[in-house]
Amino acid sequence: MTIKAVVRVGNSLRFIDQTQLPILFVQKTTDNYCEIITAIKRLEIRGAPLIGIAAAYGIAIASEKVGEITPEFVHRVAEEFCQSRPTAVNLFWAIDRVMKRFDSMCSGDLPHDLTILWSEAESIHREDAEMCSAIGKHGSSLVSDGDTILTHCNTGVLATGGIGTALGVIYTAHDEGKKIRVYADETRPLLQGARLTAWELQHHGIDVTLICDSVAAMLMKQGKINKVFVGADRIARNGDTANKIGTYSVALIAKAHGIPFYVAAPDSTFDLSLATGEGIVIEERSPLEVTRGFGSQTAPEGVAVYAPAFDVTPGSLVTAFVTNRGIIPPDRIVAELAPSTN
Amino acid sequence: MTIKAVVRVGNSLRFIDQTQLPILFVQKTTDNYCEIITAIKRLEIRGAPLIGIAAAYGIAIASEKVGEITPEFVHRVAEEFCQSRPTAVNLFWAIDRVMKRFDSMCSGDLPHDLTILWSEAESIHREDAEMCSAIGKHGSSLVSDGDTILTHCNTGVLATGGIGTALGVIYTAHDEGKKIRVYADETRPLLQGARLTAWELQHHGIDVTLICDSVAAMLMKQGKINKVFVGADRIARNGDTANKIGTYSVALIAKAHGIPFYVAAPDSTFDLSLATGEGIVIEERSPLEVTRGFGSQTAPEGVAVYAPAFDVTPGSLVTAFVTNRGIIPPDRIVAELAPSTN
Repeated sequence: MTIKAVVRVGNSLRFIDQTQLPILFVQKTTDNYCEIITAIKRLEIRGAPLIGIAAAYGIAIASEKVGEITPEFVHRVAEEFCQSRPTAVNLFWAIDRVMKRFDSMCSGDLPHDLTILWSEAESIHREDAEMCSAIGKHGSSLVSDGDTILTHCNTGVLATGGIGTALGVIYTAHDEGKKIRVYADETRPLLQGARLTAWELQHHGIDVTLICDSVAAMLMKQGKINKVFVGADRIARNGDTANKIGTYSVALIAKAHGIPFYVAAPDSTFDLSLATGEGIVIEERSPLEVTRGFGSQTAPEGVAVYAPAFDVTPGSLVTAFVTNRGIIPPDRIVAELAPSTN
Repeated sequence: MTIKAVVRVGNSLRFIDQTQLPILFVQKTTDNYCEIITAIKRLEIRGAPLIGIAAAYGIAIASEKVGEITPEFVHRVAEEFCQSRPTAVNLFWAIDRVMKRFDSMCSGDLPHDLTILWSEAESIHREDAEMCSAIGKHGSSLVSDGDTILTHCNTGVLATGGIGTALGVIYTAHDEGKKIRVYADETRPLLQGARLTAWELQHHGIDVTLICDSVAAMLMKQGKINKVFVGADRIARNGDTANKIGTYSVALIAKAHGIPFYVAAPDSTFDLSLATGEGIVIEERSPLEVTRGFGSQTAPEGVAVYAPAFDVTPGSLVTAFVTNRGIIPPDRIVAELAPSTN
């Protein structure tokens, strides 16, 4: 996989501006952390694991610019990154991990402290790639030769530091020689499925067909879908899963047709502090993403719009979670993922 | 209701070019039946009942232009209209009605035969408006003060010769003083909900909120939807209902949340020649409606697309049909609507 959504280049971050895909492949390079925050807010950098990685690099990049590195400064920058998007837990997880490392090891010596920040960001990035590969391997064991898989939103190279989560499963199954076919939900309002997933899968030579989100149920009734794989932005202890708006619909229609519904995510996506999905903050996006999403106005002036970016799928609708630590049924999350109290 | 989707003006048809809404309100007037066929194919004129009405007028308009009116000519024009769209039965029903009348009464006398064609078209138009009013009255009996109703696609003034079917129910309940709120699915790919339904309801002063199709399930889980009303393009004897793509999803998620799902349609939408929905031809639309829907390319070049315009909802998911002849449960269609054999 030659495409990398983010790369460290010296003391800068190079990233693909995903808002310009699939028409333009534009990479931006910045040593200004504010531009990284803006890129996360504007969804130039998106995908739950990827925004965590970008934020970790961003903290190091910000610290490169100051003559003296103080805990106050680094914490303030970390807080700015925390404010950039509210739903994906990977963002908070990555920032928390960087800050814990920094707080425990910072010495006031600038080169030493910068090395801590950069090395932690690089570890998070590298480990995410490894987690994707592990998710891919575990998930591929669920995929049979000849399967047709439905996916929603984008969960691949463009959403992670590696081959992806749900798409990582698809890439791995494909690379293992299984003949698979993919239907990609376009994923309104921002069309990550049409713009990013279709583009990624096409590049990788995988048989992909684009559909409007509302077509999936008809395909399921026609017997054309064997399995569903989606990603996640945050998963509670009971398996309730926040993911891109429309995921809950897909889970309901999959259940109605007896089709397995798998959520693929690294263990950093599980928020074991939450008993259920009730506590997950759901980001609302601008009405303009619905009313002027395609370059022209498509709804009457002044119409009220409700535009949540995510929904929560009850754990009871999830057949199993595909994680870097194996396949985990919803009722085994705490047993498999909670830190040992021994 | 002052907006009329089609109006006879002398020997011409004036129609709203619905592809330009909600940005521009453009009315076109034509005495060329080929332009009416093109307008139906291009969805400038759309909505199952409305295309039937437009086709009926179109046959009269075509016949105005010939020096001598022959059965062969009229049948050939009728056949051209039959070819314009494949799914909605109202089109075939209206054309069949005009042709039966013409065949039984034509005399070879041009003014007389033209009068037959125009008067039959006007009857179909007037009766459709009356059926809409009747559907509205029957349906409103199912609507309670304070209800929040979800609807899909456009089934109102712009889809019929009167106040509409599903939207006719909403207009009637509103006009009877019931305080109701509407969520309108945007209805990809052609966004009839965003462009047409939101526009109509806004004009009529009804509280409408626009959502992406994928948001409806989340709203249902939050308890924000009380009832669903949709229209239909063709209904089989067992209640299987062809309607705009995405309707089947809505029916499934409504069932999962225990929310009543009503289909509003005139009796001309019931195709009692079909035992089930299996036999309904589903129109496929151009991939460009998905990949370049609204002024810009939103998917990679050359990606495969599956773009059905309709799906079929099993009759078992329909709580009841709201018709001009009353509220009919799925298992009573034949008993209530089949011609008496006494």
